[in-house]
Amino acid sequence: MKQSGKQQRTIAIVGAGLIGGSMAKDLRRKGFASRFIGVSRKPETSARALELGLIDDALPLDEAMAVSDIIILAIPVNAIQKMLPEVLDKMSSAAVVLDAGSTKGLICEAVRNHPMRSRFVASHPIAGTENSGPEAAIEGLFRGKVNIICERELSAPDAMETVTALFDALEMKTLFMDPTEHDKHVAYVSHLSHVSSFLLGQTVLDIEKDQKNIFNLAGSGFASTVRLAKSSPDMWAPIFAQNKKYLNQALKEYIRHLQIFQQHLEAGDMEKLHQIMLEANSIRRVLQGIEQSGQRVQAQAVEEQK
Amino acid sequence: MKQSGKQQRTIAIVGAGLIGGSMAKDLRRKGFASRFIGVSRKPETSARALELGLIDDALPLDEAMAVSDIIILAIPVNAIQKMLPEVLDKMSSAAVVLDAGSTKGLICEAVRNHPMRSRFVASHPIAGTENSGPEAAIEGLFRGKVNIICERELSAPDAMETVTALFDALEMKTLFMDPTEHDKHVAYVSHLSHVSSFLLGQTVLDIEKDQKNIFNLAGSGFASTVRLAKSSPDMWAPIFAQNKKYLNQALKEYIRHLQIFQQHLEAGDMEKLHQIMLEANSIRRVLQGIEQSGQRVQAQAVEEQK
Repeated sequence: MKQSGKQQRTIAIVGAGLIGGSMAKDLRRKGFASRFIGVSRKPETSARALELGLIDDALPLDEAMAVSDIIILAIPVNAIQKMLPEVLDKMSSAAVVLDAGSTKGLICEAVRNHPMRSRFVASHPIAGTENSGPEAAIEGLFRGKVNIICERELSAPDAMETVTALFDALEMKTLFMDPTEHDKHVAYVSHLSHVSSFLLGQTVLDIEKDQKNIFNLAGSGFASTVRLAKSSPDMWAPIFAQNKKYLNQALKEYIRHLQIFQQHLEAGDMEKLHQIMLEANSIRRVLQGIEQSGQRVQAQAVEEQK
Repeated sequence: MKQSGKQQRTIAIVGAGLIGGSMAKDLRRKGFASRFIGVSRKPETSARALELGLIDDALPLDEAMAVSDIIILAIPVNAIQKMLPEVLDKMSSAAVVLDAGSTKGLICEAVRNHPMRSRFVASHPIAGTENSGPEAAIEGLFRGKVNIICERELSAPDAMETVTALFDALEMKTLFMDPTEHDKHVAYVSHLSHVSSFLLGQTVLDIEKDQKNIFNLAGSGFASTVRLAKSSPDMWAPIFAQNKKYLNQALKEYIRHLQIFQQHLEAGDMEKLHQIMLEANSIRRVLQGIEQSGQRVQAQAVEEQK
């Protein structure tokens, strides 16, 4: 591992797709590191990331680790869970590893008692689009968004410092949460949205065999609601599996609400339908908050909850 | 009623909100009519529409009808169903009335045997946002979108001509469908999206009593999926009630798909989850079509179906 000044940092990006590639773009632009090494199982991903200038080299994991100051795991969560202990086994004790997984419970558990645990920072930068792969990498993806770090007390102070600086360079607001709390809340406000959208897409495709009707009758509302159904199954199946407990609770709760609505609909109880929709309208306030998240994120309030 | 040239047309807009107000904006800009009269139950709606310049006068329905060449009903579908026969009873036989309701079955049924049926054109311009009221009226809302006309054979040729010209002025592509077919397909590709979004909003608000967690953890994906939950219950409860039969089928189908997914999730069957998501991914093609709808709407194909 090179001991180097800020400008000479080398970062290994394991998975230079939407998340890893977008990180590389902004970290390079901000001068946070000078060399980016791509690590991928698939040669075509590395080739594409090289072509797009996201990475400077493509190397196998071991070789990349040997020369990197920071290792970012931006791969499906089941792959993170499997690879992270191996990375900690082999990496230099001066390097830092962080992940970008949308679940935190099983990932944190996998290395909780690892002798090198302090070199790891468990992160979830909450940003993305429905696209995937190196082509999906975009500048400014993380700007003004929230990053969650879990179990910061298990990370070494210098590791925390490096990773905090990294997320600052991405212009993210970092908050701290317990992994279980993280997974529970994220099940509702992110994973459930994906399930609702995937299944809406599947239901409509299933019924409207003749897709001309979808073309002709769907408006921007349908497009918005079903947008997440374009997301990568390779990324999302493992997230759902890892967050099974809380997502299952969220999904059952969603189904229960839908069933109640369906019963009121069948009974023709317009009053009840109206009341449910009026309650749901309160989401307007919350969405205004999200749209202004750069300014409005209530970092301190969450800090105080800890 | 004034017999007047194109530039001197007078249009009565019953309900100068998102839809009626946006129509007035573009029809005025295009010189399709010279005078717009607002009709509203609520004085504050008329006052606001006047302030915003959407309408030139506010009059009671009878007075507005007496001086209008075209009457547009842009009010909740239950109000259209109730008001339309009364309008046909009283209006001049040279005038034309059209509606903008998201359901067509009950509205068409309400006037099918009315002696003045030929003066009515049953329309559904498929456009909108999650906002409502005169403030929500925007220019270009309808541009490149699809308008559905039902039972055109029951409308007089001159009425069809006027209304087709009106939707042309809004730069919409007009297609023709049977009211039952319309309601059935729209249940899946529009009404179901609204239900899924309203209930997602309600479920999340119900669980996340402390809305700080929604603020902090929700990303753009949640915002997109839940956007329609901001829609007006006054507009949507009647739509759901009128399209009860088909929406109920669609909703049951959606719940069934969610339950299957939930069972696979509970069983930890990642393969199955992956497969379902991969199927849902096909929606990508359909959404590309919607985004390019101005060019891609397969008008002729639908024409040929008739």
